[in-house]
Amino acid sequence: MILVSGKEVSSRVQDEIAIEVEKLKANGGKIPHLAAVLVGEDGASRTYVNAKVKACERVGFGSTLVKLDSDISEADLLAEIDKLNNDNDIDGFIVQLPLPKHINEQKVTEAIAPEKDVDGFHPVSLGKMVLDLPSFLPATPAGIIEMLRHYNIPTEGKHCVVIGRSHIVGSPMSILMARNTYPGNCTVTLTHSRTRNLTEICASADILIVAIGKPEFVTADMVKEGATVIDVGIHRIEDSSKKSGFRLLGDVKFDEVAPKCAFISPVPGGVGPMTIASLLKNTLLAVRLK
Amino acid sequence: MILVSGKEVSSRVQDEIAIEVEKLKANGGKIPHLAAVLVGEDGASRTYVNAKVKACERVGFGSTLVKLDSDISEADLLAEIDKLNNDNDIDGFIVQLPLPKHINEQKVTEAIAPEKDVDGFHPVSLGKMVLDLPSFLPATPAGIIEMLRHYNIPTEGKHCVVIGRSHIVGSPMSILMARNTYPGNCTVTLTHSRTRNLTEICASADILIVAIGKPEFVTADMVKEGATVIDVGIHRIEDSSKKSGFRLLGDVKFDEVAPKCAFISPVPGGVGPMTIASLLKNTLLAVRLK
Repeated sequence: MILVSGKEVSSRVQDEIAIEVEKLKANGGKIPHLAAVLVGEDGASRTYVNAKVKACERVGFGSTLVKLDSDISEADLLAEIDKLNNDNDIDGFIVQLPLPKHINEQKVTEAIAPEKDVDGFHPVSLGKMVLDLPSFLPATPAGIIEMLRHYNIPTEGKHCVVIGRSHIVGSPMSILMARNTYPGNCTVTLTHSRTRNLTEICASADILIVAIGKPEFVTADMVKEGATVIDVGIHRIEDSSKKSGFRLLGDVKFDEVAPKCAFISPVPGGVGPMTIASLLKNTLLAVRLK
Repeated sequence: MILVSGKEVSSRVQDEIAIEVEKLKANGGKIPHLAAVLVGEDGASRTYVNAKVKACERVGFGSTLVKLDSDISEADLLAEIDKLNNDNDIDGFIVQLPLPKHINEQKVTEAIAPEKDVDGFHPVSLGKMVLDLPSFLPATPAGIIEMLRHYNIPTEGKHCVVIGRSHIVGSPMSILMARNTYPGNCTVTLTHSRTRNLTEICASADILIVAIGKPEFVTADMVKEGATVIDVGIHRIEDSSKKSGFRLLGDVKFDEVAPKCAFISPVPGGVGPMTIASLLKNTLLAVRLK
């Protein structure tokens, strides 16, 4: 069993990006510049945004943090987005979700100029993905593709089962795994809450991608001997035996599933760390597509 | 075995649209107006475009046919598209494909204003489809959805197998069949040229949608007793015993497959006639989304 370490792949990708930035600098090219918009004071959101800003510094990108009050009106937020859309120095930007309830997230997402949509949530980005055109892929699916590539996990002709049909993970993942490229060329089955015989379907998977959002949902009987299992879930479970008072679990019952796997991603240290790598890759792509 | 007659469903949909147009007229609303751009003199393209214009007349839509020479430059074609984008009376328009080789089809498709993209080929349309937002669905997948609805074919929890991963049929079809709605909520398997055990996978399908582009590819051994089979293929095969000199075949070996099916769409008279119904529905939607 080989552990698919997102931590390691993410750090490798970031090293590669840092080298690209050095090259851009040496050639007098544009240094990629990512902006992040943070509305309000939600602790988790602040942590995520700070991690993104730090990652920018590490690879040599410019970064800007736009902090806005939680009571900002939708119109004022849209005006801020318009400013970023028109700022030639900003190559890409994200608006950290979730937003306060009085703001329409879909409206905000669609207000981002598609050529700066480094989160890959804009309809144009997803549509280009369906059409196989160069585009900003959503962070989690793109990160999983990168992990499969890094570990040279065979995909062509394999049966890939995706659990969960969310707009930003399961659904795009199913499209990417079926594309005529590597990683890709899988026969892909997309499953969800209405799926019957889920255990049987999962047990036929060569590659199982789990994004159902239920702690330890996937058990050993659902996994084929020699399969690759990628766990997208992350759950904080109270645990008084830990100093922090909690432990992190994925959507997969790791201890019993891992021994059956050829490859498996752990939680934490699996898919999670890849999202920042994907964001930085998209920002570099934004400069290249200009 | 029940024959899924696209001819009948298409005519029913067009009757419904005609009633909607009458209502719009009675209420002094905008009468939907579809324009079609035809470049060059390709016989098949001319036939398709004429059929679309005729269908507009039948349901009471306004229609405009823009005929352009086959040697028109890409820039001039883009200028014509810009005119249609800015013409307030035109609610939606299509550019009939294929285009002459000196013109970049993708560029032309993306030049169409997304709010007038009634063919549903623009990245914005496909992205909105992935995000479950109101959008123009591509004609063939939308037509198949309509057929399933018309015949009340159960889909929830069913296994839908799609053969073929093209951008305008197989790939969007797989997304639509997995959506949390009716028709939808299927467990969906997307298969293609790299798929192994295709016979076995197809034989497990409750709903089999065939868009592989090979005459009579699907044989009886690939179909489960009681399945629903939708045949997207259409092929002209020389046949001297026919007056016309040819006969039409689908991707499914109809004679041997049909007896096993609960529902099956024939060729011709199946999916084909639905594309015009979808186009008209999209044009009506364009007026509504204004």
